[in-house]
Amino acid sequence: MSLVVQKYGGSSLSDADSIKRVARRIVDTRKAGNRVCVVVSAMGDTTDELLDLADAVSPAPPERELDMLLTAGERMSMALVSMAIANLGDSARSYTGSQAGVITDDSHGKARIIDVTPGRIQAALDKGHIVIVAGFQGVSQNTKEITTLGRGGSDTTAVALAAALKADVCEIYTDVDGIFTADPRIVPTARKIDRITNEEMQEMAASGAKVLMLRCVEYARRFNLPIHVRSSFSHREGTWVLDPTEGETVEAPIIAGVAHDRSEAKLTVVGVKDSPGQAAEIFNAVAAAEINIDMIVQNVSAADTGKTDVSFTLPKSDGQTAVKKLKALKEKLGYDHLQYDDQVGKLSLIGSGMRSHPGVSATLFQALADAGINIEMISSSEIRVSVVTRDDQLDDAVRAVHTAFGLDSSDGEAVVYGGSGR
Amino acid sequence: MSLVVQKYGGSSLSDADSIKRVARRIVDTRKAGNRVCVVVSAMGDTTDELLDLADAVSPAPPERELDMLLTAGERMSMALVSMAIANLGDSARSYTGSQAGVITDDSHGKARIIDVTPGRIQAALDKGHIVIVAGFQGVSQNTKEITTLGRGGSDTTAVALAAALKADVCEIYTDVDGIFTADPRIVPTARKIDRITNEEMQEMAASGAKVLMLRCVEYARRFNLPIHVRSSFSHREGTWVLDPTEGETVEAPIIAGVAHDRSEAKLTVVGVKDSPGQAAEIFNAVAAAEINIDMIVQNVSAADTGKTDVSFTLPKSDGQTAVKKLKALKEKLGYDHLQYDDQVGKLSLIGSGMRSHPGVSATLFQALADAGINIEMISSSEIRVSVVTRDDQLDDAVRAVHTAFGLDSSDGEAVVYGGSGR
Repeated sequence: MSLVVQKYGGSSLSDADSIKRVARRIVDTRKAGNRVCVVVSAMGDTTDELLDLADAVSPAPPERELDMLLTAGERMSMALVSMAIANLGDSARSYTGSQAGVITDDSHGKARIIDVTPGRIQAALDKGHIVIVAGFQGVSQNTKEITTLGRGGSDTTAVALAAALKADVCEIYTDVDGIFTADPRIVPTARKIDRITNEEMQEMAASGAKVLMLRCVEYARRFNLPIHVRSSFSHREGTWVLDPTEGETVEAPIIAGVAHDRSEAKLTVVGVKDSPGQAAEIFNAVAAAEINIDMIVQNVSAADTGKTDVSFTLPKSDGQTAVKKLKALKEKLGYDHLQYDDQVGKLSLIGSGMRSHPGVSATLFQALADAGINIEMISSSEIRVSVVTRDDQLDDAVRAVHTAFGLDSSDGEAVVYGGSGR
Repeated sequence: MSLVVQKYGGSSLSDADSIKRVARRIVDTRKAGNRVCVVVSAMGDTTDELLDLADAVSPAPPERELDMLLTAGERMSMALVSMAIANLGDSARSYTGSQAGVITDDSHGKARIIDVTPGRIQAALDKGHIVIVAGFQGVSQNTKEITTLGRGGSDTTAVALAAALKADVCEIYTDVDGIFTADPRIVPTARKIDRITNEEMQEMAASGAKVLMLRCVEYARRFNLPIHVRSSFSHREGTWVLDPTEGETVEAPIIAGVAHDRSEAKLTVVGVKDSPGQAAEIFNAVAAAEINIDMIVQNVSAADTGKTDVSFTLPKSDGQTAVKKLKALKEKLGYDHLQYDDQVGKLSLIGSGMRSHPGVSATLFQALADAGINIEMISSSEIRVSVVTRDDQLDDAVRAVHTAFGLDSSDGEAVVYGGSGR
């Protein structure tokens, strides 16, 4: 008997009717002979409504209390899903994150799961119940306070529980059919990906693909847990995220997809003295403010000045903090001035086939040149190439690259299989 | 430094503005030099909205899951009150019933508090925090499941916590000014009671007075805890519910007030054999169905038939169950037929002065006779006389009795002080 962990997001739980539809799907999974543990998010707009309420009583509510408030959302949806299952004649038990043994660190609002002790869940499953667990929440190890995991936290709850329960699969139900070769809102010809390696998925998520959050993919990869991302509105197969050793690596496409990200800004420190240790001082200052930087470019020093420019990208939300921090250190660092630019976008091309196919970057740059798009920064990993462009050119860039690598669905079966060398 | 436990009901927490007003009052109490522990109900209509949601997914939801759902209501209000306090510059910590150590039995939806272990609350108070606790909820001792206490449960939470914390007073904030000599909607001249003994309050609550629930008063009486019932919309003194040894017993009025109750029905078993044990069999059958009966009347046996009628009152909500139960035993009990009547009302006159003033019943019956109201059943305790009337005559009866005992506010100071003998 298989153990299936399913996760349903807020868009699949928008009202009583959709809750009943989800309950039917859960019961069907159970009837098919599986043990079922379900992780739910808050219904539809509940979290936003709770945030509005919080905002109405306090402009800057304490994070502990905000977590207490927001966790009411999943509590409601888990009880309602459980009731809807009972109404179909099956037995369900709902558990909060704390009851389910989701142990986190103490960081309210962005807690990390550090352990899962699913004793009560296991016991309820052993008794034949369907188990419903509140996503997005846990209890802190030291202070025993209620915490929330931050964005995408319910996916992480599902994967962490699936790993702890040694589930056979973790099904992530959402309002789209799976992972696409690019965002279909930008590239109408984007295709659903049937299988993707968890390594590729990790790069996709890190590069801005929104369907699965990075932490959830990292967790699944660490525990070698298959994820099936699929729509709660159909019964079609979605996208399987698998360990590469389990995929058909020989026949895999070179390129898995094109991701984009508009959440970053570019900060340039102009006129830095070109001497050893200057860059380190800059990045130490930024790191001290707990700001994650992404891409870094340092220009070659102009021979007559002995000065250089250092650019890096960082989350827009951290932009003002970083600027303030570096301004405070202007004298110590000895640079000329700062340039902050939040009108940039990032395009990333991801595919494990890049390892054996060195021509990928050349094709990428050519496609962007042909489309008249200027590249401002470049970075790459083993299976990813990322470029920064003007924000208003990003959509064109994504479409041009998607076409250049033969990913458009109008190309039919002309997927880029191994051996083309481009 | 005094320890004050305050309880705010849903009508005092209807929206963001009223939450802020409550927060201001809590902070003022703290600033006056008290330690403060606050118990909150769910905001305004939240509980009804949650029940509607439950009803939309299941006509008969499992009670465990219903408790899980409903407890989200207090979770939201406690977090919001806590945030509003923080916004005023004071520090507050909110705790669920489970976290506050409210231990109950296993009866979902109507759990009874069997212990309070307020270790975390005490620790938070000791650190100087204002503590906000979710009312109406607890955790079951054996199964560690989330439970709710049923109607008026937040008042009971407040009194139980106050007793466990050895608080100096438990303030129950509501949307009326205190306890009145009768329901002001029926008797516009009803007066607010300044002090009432907890014994009288217990009889008032048991007789249908709605401001304080019976279980809460019983709890306060057992632990000899002063309750102050007052309005959250004003700063006027409300009604103090005190141990009689602490009140000015000598000068206490004979009559505390007139309560009424429309929640009961009358069931008459007609033509019962007038032999020993017949009544016992009837009431054993009703008791076996866990139905609480209130008043009982047995007619004198008609000499020529050897048969008698037995009437009793019971909650309307249990009426059909009782009828079914007794019908099933018709042959065994050997009665003629059943008469079920839910068009009745009960009036109760309460006052500890009755002990020393035997004329009270006579005055009561005369007042009702003068108003043309027929009495169908009578019962009394040491400090209470109750009569059953037609439902549509109950309001007139309450007004007539209120006037007859000089309780009307137009009487000014003409309160019935000791010694009148009527």
